[in-house]
Amino acid sequence: MTSLSALLDGTYSLPACNNTALAAAQQRQNQLTKPQGSLGRLEELALWMAGWQGTERPTLDAGNCLIFAGNHGITARGISAFPADVTAQMVANFTHGGAAINQLCDTAGLTLSVTPLMLDTPTADFSAGPAMSHDDVLVAFQAGMDAIPETCDYLVFGEMGIGNTTSAAALCAALFGGHGADWAGRGTGLDDAALAAKAAIIDEALIRHGRIFDSPQALLAAYGGRELAAIAGGVLAARARRIPVMLDGYICCAAAACLTLLDTAALEHCQISHLSAEQAHGRLSDALGKTPLLSLNMRLGEASGGAVATLLVRAALATHNGMASFAEAGVSGG
Amino acid sequence: MTSLSALLDGTYSLPACNNTALAAAQQRQNQLTKPQGSLGRLEELALWMAGWQGTERPTLDAGNCLIFAGNHGITARGISAFPADVTAQMVANFTHGGAAINQLCDTAGLTLSVTPLMLDTPTADFSAGPAMSHDDVLVAFQAGMDAIPETCDYLVFGEMGIGNTTSAAALCAALFGGHGADWAGRGTGLDDAALAAKAAIIDEALIRHGRIFDSPQALLAAYGGRELAAIAGGVLAARARRIPVMLDGYICCAAAACLTLLDTAALEHCQISHLSAEQAHGRLSDALGKTPLLSLNMRLGEASGGAVATLLVRAALATHNGMASFAEAGVSGG
Repeated sequence: MTSLSALLDGTYSLPACNNTALAAAQQRQNQLTKPQGSLGRLEELALWMAGWQGTERPTLDAGNCLIFAGNHGITARGISAFPADVTAQMVANFTHGGAAINQLCDTAGLTLSVTPLMLDTPTADFSAGPAMSHDDVLVAFQAGMDAIPETCDYLVFGEMGIGNTTSAAALCAALFGGHGADWAGRGTGLDDAALAAKAAIIDEALIRHGRIFDSPQALLAAYGGRELAAIAGGVLAARARRIPVMLDGYICCAAAACLTLLDTAALEHCQISHLSAEQAHGRLSDALGKTPLLSLNMRLGEASGGAVATLLVRAALATHNGMASFAEAGVSGG
Repeated sequence: MTSLSALLDGTYSLPACNNTALAAAQQRQNQLTKPQGSLGRLEELALWMAGWQGTERPTLDAGNCLIFAGNHGITARGISAFPADVTAQMVANFTHGGAAINQLCDTAGLTLSVTPLMLDTPTADFSAGPAMSHDDVLVAFQAGMDAIPETCDYLVFGEMGIGNTTSAAALCAALFGGHGADWAGRGTGLDDAALAAKAAIIDEALIRHGRIFDSPQALLAAYGGRELAAIAGGVLAARARRIPVMLDGYICCAAAACLTLLDTAALEHCQISHLSAEQAHGRLSDALGKTPLLSLNMRLGEASGGAVATLLVRAALATHNGMASFAEAGVSGG
């Protein structure tokens, strides 16, 4: 496996999609018993899997859903409707199989792993100073890399961390411009006054740390959380291995977006699973040049949207790999 | 089972959603380990299944996907990019397991049945006269009713019939106003000139048959197809049995829409699975007051969107029935 330092040193060149496999998969699609293009984004998903897996007939036999959990010092400023204890309580719920993501991984045929990251040591309040040190970021990056199993043909990333929509909003503002109000949302259920306060806290932090960062590590040290750094590390490691990645909602996308500081094309192997109800997710998706697959008004996090969108990938591969061609079926072509 | 004539005689009162079961399911949702409402439309789907099945814990153990196929005399006017022979060829493809819907039913855990309706006897060219007799419509209605198995807790409806987007567009124009151009789309792949010709043919037919019909049967006799009448009959029979129905795309929704002439609330037990790429489907969904669950740029028909949306129903029921409550998991509530 390519080492973390090699991936981050700026000289490593990220692998590209396999265009030969992509063309072969496209040719196969064109021969299947349906008007060309009539399966819409299901066809697009089959081609995406083919291109990154480097095969005309992609698989989803070893799909993994990786959740990272972290705690956030910014919660001291009252930016969440739930207490910080809920992060650890939900990690226990994941472990015991009682959360939404457990049921959704069962439905989608994904193997779930949950990585809690020093829950007893929250990051610092980033409105008062850096959230964490560069070393903290690298440790979390490495945890993200290490969570990917040796055998893996598809990945979903997600997170749990009370307070982390505030961190995500600050990362987005630093990366893509705008103010706190442009990127802050209601999270698990803030009212109007609390939402305005959250936006103001982000603006404070933007003044303190600025918007100029020369690496994902530096950006994440200022505003990030351990689970966000782990997602960035995992998404980068997946790219090095050409594993297709399904991103969950706003927080997960914000974490992955940090990688664009390393390479503007760093997320070419990623799809955005769903448009979250968190208000700035549409703006973030646009900034990343991607259209979310689903729009179901979900806002749970914990990889839930990623797991649901995996059902679309299954549908895409079932049709791509299982349908008869016009010639095989004796159907007159269009 | 309630007879067809009883359902259609205007005195039968369609059963309503079970509000006691709905309230119990809502109460259950509110106790599950997630911020209330954070699963968005998945929660809505669980409640919909609960209300129509009349139970706090709905199931999808006996889900059926019913496809009806018919041929259309209107194809003589050149309104399709594919020859009419393709209807029968695709029915054979369904039977042999080579079509998209075969793979999608496998993925979604649905039992597929295909009912070809007198493929050797196309309906008449409805721009020159009625598409079929009232008796023809009733026979097709009955075929739709009869296709529903005795044991069934969920239904997807779909169709196959070269030329049937023209029929669907005429039905919509008669029901909801507007001209051919407002309701005609490219079907399996018409160019601009052919699309304009298709719209003009629909306008001709609207002048011939008018827009005033006092029953679904009369409307379908003028503009319909056998497979569209079968869908209308099946959707009505499902309502009488309180079976939740997932409608496929434009054509399927147009067929079901005919039932609003019987009762404006006739489709309360139905969801629209996806927004088809057929251009008028958004207008039709709006007219029916429903928001499609998916928007994947699909335009295949044959129940494909309905089968894909069934995956969302599975995700909805898995979370609804499988998640732990705040109390069970020891998680602090919001």
